[in-house]
Amino acid sequence: MPGIDKLPIEEALEDSPQTRSLLGVFEEDTAAISSYYHQLFQAMQRIYDAQNELSAATHLTSKLLKEYEKQRFPLGGDDEVMSSTLQQFAKVIDELSSCHAVLSTQLADAMMFPITQFKEKDLKEILTLKEVFQISSDGENQLSTKMRNFHLMLFVKGEVMEDVYTSRKKQHQTVMHYFLALNTLQYKKKIALLEPLLGYMQAQISFFKLGSENLTQQWEDFLTNIGTSVQNNVAYFHITFIPHQVKA
Amino acid sequence: MPGIDKLPIEEALEDSPQTRSLLGVFEEDTAAISSYYHQLFQAMQRIYDAQNELSAATHLTSKLLKEYEKQRFPLGGDDEVMSSTLQQFAKVIDELSSCHAVLSTQLADAMMFPITQFKEKDLKEILTLKEVFQISSDGENQLSTKMRNFHLMLFVKGEVMEDVYTSRKKQHQTVMHYFLALNTLQYKKKIALLEPLLGYMQAQISFFKLGSENLTQQWEDFLTNIGTSVQNNVAYFHITFIPHQVKA
Repeated sequence: MPGIDKLPIEEALEDSPQTRSLLGVFEEDTAAISSYYHQLFQAMQRIYDAQNELSAATHLTSKLLKEYEKQRFPLGGDDEVMSSTLQQFAKVIDELSSCHAVLSTQLADAMMFPITQFKEKDLKEILTLKEVFQISSDGENQLSTKMRNFHLMLFVKGEVMEDVYTSRKKQHQTVMHYFLALNTLQYKKKIALLEPLLGYMQAQISFFKLGSENLTQQWEDFLTNIGTSVQNNVAYFHITFIPHQVKA
Repeated sequence: MPGIDKLPIEEALEDSPQTRSLLGVFEEDTAAISSYYHQLFQAMQRIYDAQNELSAATHLTSKLLKEYEKQRFPLGGDDEVMSSTLQQFAKVIDELSSCHAVLSTQLADAMMFPITQFKEKDLKEILTLKEVFQISSDGENQLSTKMRNFHLMLFVKGEVMEDVYTSRKKQHQTVMHYFLALNTLQYKKKIALLEPLLGYMQAQISFFKLGSENLTQQWEDFLTNIGTSVQNNVAYFHITFIPHQVKA
């Protein structure tokens, strides 16, 4: 992966204006990534939620059709042809619901998981490190002032030196972690965008395949029969009932 | 369509106990239909709403990807390979979004329209007629009492007779309309259930066909390339970056 910008870790410890300026660019880029990926995350979350709702609503429809037999219709409730037709509908809608459930699971694993990880782990880690880095920088500045004052007083104690040493060491670790995290983000940012999109598309392809291979043919046969039956019913209704109504 | 129960219109005018009892059965059946179809309507409305939300969220995702180029990323924002890859993703997701939009439209026409018509027209008409019928029956009872009182007083005026005649005529029309509507419901109830289910299934089949015929193949070629590219990136990331991180 050529052309990836990197913050020079080896210069992390030198607080030069060049490093500061470069850090500013990386921080700006990180903020832009954070904002853009957050919008994409929300759009994907909407897709995922809608897909789950679709699965649930499809399942509910199938469940209602299965309950048709248990309804207490005083008239024609014992119509076996109707009952068995609705059971068949319930069965095919159940299969559709299964396809939707598979799609939901795949979207969860292949789309939501990577983008959530990136948002909750990588981007959040940088935010945390940035805060620590800023606190640490402030501390460093205070320490420098303290040092200067001590130097001015020409009174340097061993304990102050140790204080400075421990604090410096901690601060350097923070800077290195922060720089590394910013560099890692540059490496990860493309993958973090492509991976969930890829997962999304592959889940959709599987869904279309599953739907067209397993369902379409058997549904079509069933629906052609039902379709003819419904059309016959509509025709019967228009021939025998409408004139009666008009006559009356 | 054999075995459909009918209220005898010719007996509508005779307010016999048998007719009253039969009417009670039809009203009970109508209430059961109303309750069951209302649940089914709500489930279908949920499917339709979720499908619309899915279309909108898919469209938004594609829109966001198209806007990638306009983002001001200070680092690597001029990466043309990434830009063109995301444009391709935007294009295929746009096509998916079109498929979803077609499905939404078909669900509106073939599923929501017939079941909404049945709920808003047929079932509501019966409710209205039932109210009118009850008011009319009450009126008829009051009129009978009035008549009886007049007879008792042995004082029958022509205007009262005309009053009775007009009212009776109106009431008979109401009863006939009500009986006809109840009979129509018996004829329509199966179609009203099968038609939206049929529309739903056919819309789904078209969706799967559209998806698998138009999208799957071209997507697969594109995604295989992207998939390899992402995997290469992941491999590159692990080889070149992780050791660096550990070293540091």
